[in-house]
Amino acid sequence: MRAERRGAENPQVASLTSAGVLWPQIEELAEFTAEPGAAGVTREVFTAPYMAACQWLAGLMEQAGLAVRSDSFGNLFGRLEGEDPAAAVVMSGSHIDTVPDGGRFDGTLGVLGAIEAVRQLRAGDWRPRRSVEVVAFAGEEPRFGKGCIGSRAMTGTLARDALETLRDRSGTTLAEAMRACGLDPDELAAAQIDPKRVHAFVELHIEQGVVLETRGLPIGLVTHIAAQHAMRVVMRGEPGHAGATPMGLRRDALAAAAEVVLAVERLAQQAPSGTAVGTVGAIGARPGAINVVAGEAELLVDIRDRELGARTETLEALLGEIEAIAARREVGYEIETISSDEPLTASPLVLGAAREACDRLAVEYTEMISGAVHDSIILGRQVPIGMIFVPSRAGVSHSPLEYSEPEDLERGALVLAETLRGLAA
Amino acid sequence: MRAERRGAENPQVASLTSAGVLWPQIEELAEFTAEPGAAGVTREVFTAPYMAACQWLAGLMEQAGLAVRSDSFGNLFGRLEGEDPAAAVVMSGSHIDTVPDGGRFDGTLGVLGAIEAVRQLRAGDWRPRRSVEVVAFAGEEPRFGKGCIGSRAMTGTLARDALETLRDRSGTTLAEAMRACGLDPDELAAAQIDPKRVHAFVELHIEQGVVLETRGLPIGLVTHIAAQHAMRVVMRGEPGHAGATPMGLRRDALAAAAEVVLAVERLAQQAPSGTAVGTVGAIGARPGAINVVAGEAELLVDIRDRELGARTETLEALLGEIEAIAARREVGYEIETISSDEPLTASPLVLGAAREACDRLAVEYTEMISGAVHDSIILGRQVPIGMIFVPSRAGVSHSPLEYSEPEDLERGALVLAETLRGLAA
Repeated sequence: MRAERRGAENPQVASLTSAGVLWPQIEELAEFTAEPGAAGVTREVFTAPYMAACQWLAGLMEQAGLAVRSDSFGNLFGRLEGEDPAAAVVMSGSHIDTVPDGGRFDGTLGVLGAIEAVRQLRAGDWRPRRSVEVVAFAGEEPRFGKGCIGSRAMTGTLARDALETLRDRSGTTLAEAMRACGLDPDELAAAQIDPKRVHAFVELHIEQGVVLETRGLPIGLVTHIAAQHAMRVVMRGEPGHAGATPMGLRRDALAAAAEVVLAVERLAQQAPSGTAVGTVGAIGARPGAINVVAGEAELLVDIRDRELGARTETLEALLGEIEAIAARREVGYEIETISSDEPLTASPLVLGAAREACDRLAVEYTEMISGAVHDSIILGRQVPIGMIFVPSRAGVSHSPLEYSEPEDLERGALVLAETLRGLAA
Repeated sequence: MRAERRGAENPQVASLTSAGVLWPQIEELAEFTAEPGAAGVTREVFTAPYMAACQWLAGLMEQAGLAVRSDSFGNLFGRLEGEDPAAAVVMSGSHIDTVPDGGRFDGTLGVLGAIEAVRQLRAGDWRPRRSVEVVAFAGEEPRFGKGCIGSRAMTGTLARDALETLRDRSGTTLAEAMRACGLDPDELAAAQIDPKRVHAFVELHIEQGVVLETRGLPIGLVTHIAAQHAMRVVMRGEPGHAGATPMGLRRDALAAAAEVVLAVERLAQQAPSGTAVGTVGAIGARPGAINVVAGEAELLVDIRDRELGARTETLEALLGEIEAIAARREVGYEIETISSDEPLTASPLVLGAAREACDRLAVEYTEMISGAVHDSIILGRQVPIGMIFVPSRAGVSHSPLEYSEPEDLERGALVLAETLRGLAA
């Protein structure tokens, strides 16, 4: 509220007006889903609803006066040419894929908000020195087990081999899914950008936590992104008939896996850092019939903390527990690391530009740590990055209940616009 | 060994010879699988490999001189007409569907063994007074959550509604699967038999336990079939972002479900009866992504015991534990009973005929309880039934490691043949 009142008094930002277009755009984008009629949005990367949404998004970029292109991995770009086309670009965006039965704001705000930010700046007859590019990364959510595959492709950190080995829940490889979308896996390398060509990357995002809500603040500027360690754990016992295998003769892989689920929870709760989170979000038993003792059970485990050392402590404690559970139950196990990213510190360049934007707009903010992984953490290894958070109701995300107030979204786009103006000058 | 030696001295059974055809038939039938090349057999009812196997089986029945027909539910029959076509028939058989990645003997022995038994009896110029029917029940394994659907259809205890509500793991209803096989769900009632037309039913089966192996005996005659209580348990928490939802704010449905898995195991281990078994063989989390705290988790639970009272005690203790877990974690839950069958006592008529068969063949046997559910338990509510067990190596079943010695299979078919001879006289 204060933002708009005081912003209007500031001649530098007089040209920025909340047109109220973000909300209807978010609603329209939510209609691209694999389950129309369901409360949640299911739009996994390289599925039909995802590709249709990209087409719709390209149209929106064009309407905003951006030159649209997509790279060999399907990352989508909308470019506003700057006065100095040779200068390194300022980039902003996020992703429009969702988890199954996810929300409408995670990722989408960063893409639609960036288009809206550029549209607002252009409405003020702005012509930046640096070109500005809006990007929609292809696949931030881990349909294929690994997250941020679009930004990994752009930074040259997604191996060609991985396209054949990463599989979704139904067994489709990433390469197969790409081909089904007309993308050639052998052209992966062409998606890699030259980091020197990127001056800065800014990502607008919902917080997905309760810090802003709890403190009653409209904007969070991210100083660090917490690190995720993702792994697949397979427990191997012996299948048997559920009726005719006495309890004493069983080596039940699913019972062993259940102990691992509870160990992940307990170790994260008890971590000395106080900031660890540990989650088993997916589980399966094989053969998976009611009357068969499971011979194999698979878990996907996600461990995060704001500091690498603390996360490593939790991880090592977990590996010890898995070893002990397996030994006690006489089952085998395998652990495969899916990804293990280090925490990242935001760039002073971007953080400074965002602070100045908030000050110019007279928007209150706090500096904070992101508990969630974003494409920014991938790009941030090679180019200066920063993130701008807006409040999420109850911190709920990856859920149909994910919600942010329209005015919080609009305010976030204003802050992003001012940040881009500063960075592109 | 002793059986054949002494049997040969007995003029009554001189006509019965082990032709060694059972083993190659079992191998041939194992080739009908959804995953050729895999160690296990995957032949779920109403799938393409199942229907192809039925066609092959019909050919085998015809070669054995049986008149083949199938009913409106897909149960397959091969009939040898007796001297008195008006007399109630003697029936023998089992099922040829498997669990996913199952073994080659469970069910198949009872069908192929019955055909072989009739073939051997006929080779001795035998013409029974009662007609003898070999049956392959359509769907003993619970592809659609509920087992023994073929025998339930035959006994009129499968509701028309259930065809629409029972679904397999991929969401296909039983009715849809039937239609895909050319069966009309509206014709379900036509599959019902008149129990008065069945004099007795005998099922030859692998033990799927370790009693015979431990005692070094070739044949078990079943006196009771243990009762199965099957249910679906859904735990309902709240989905959330795995990185940004602090441990203290979670209502993790999968962690709650993991506690239920361990409670099922512990309560079965500690049951005062000493004969309880409790299994969670299938589990799933929704939305089921690595970076989403599960909002919902589903378990399939199987509890059995040899006596109803003992099983009910274990079940009630489990319901209490689920209630307590849900209350402590502030999650909701739903429990749906899939099936709850009472233990069954074998018919003295069939048991007596089987005992006499063993005595005539001079085959040692023990009387025992079946820990596994079979179609016999369904038929046994309406017609006199009995079961003949042969040893299973290490008691392993519902697994590619399921194994029985060829001579044990042949001996089982001999005992079945002699039992049928007695019952059909």
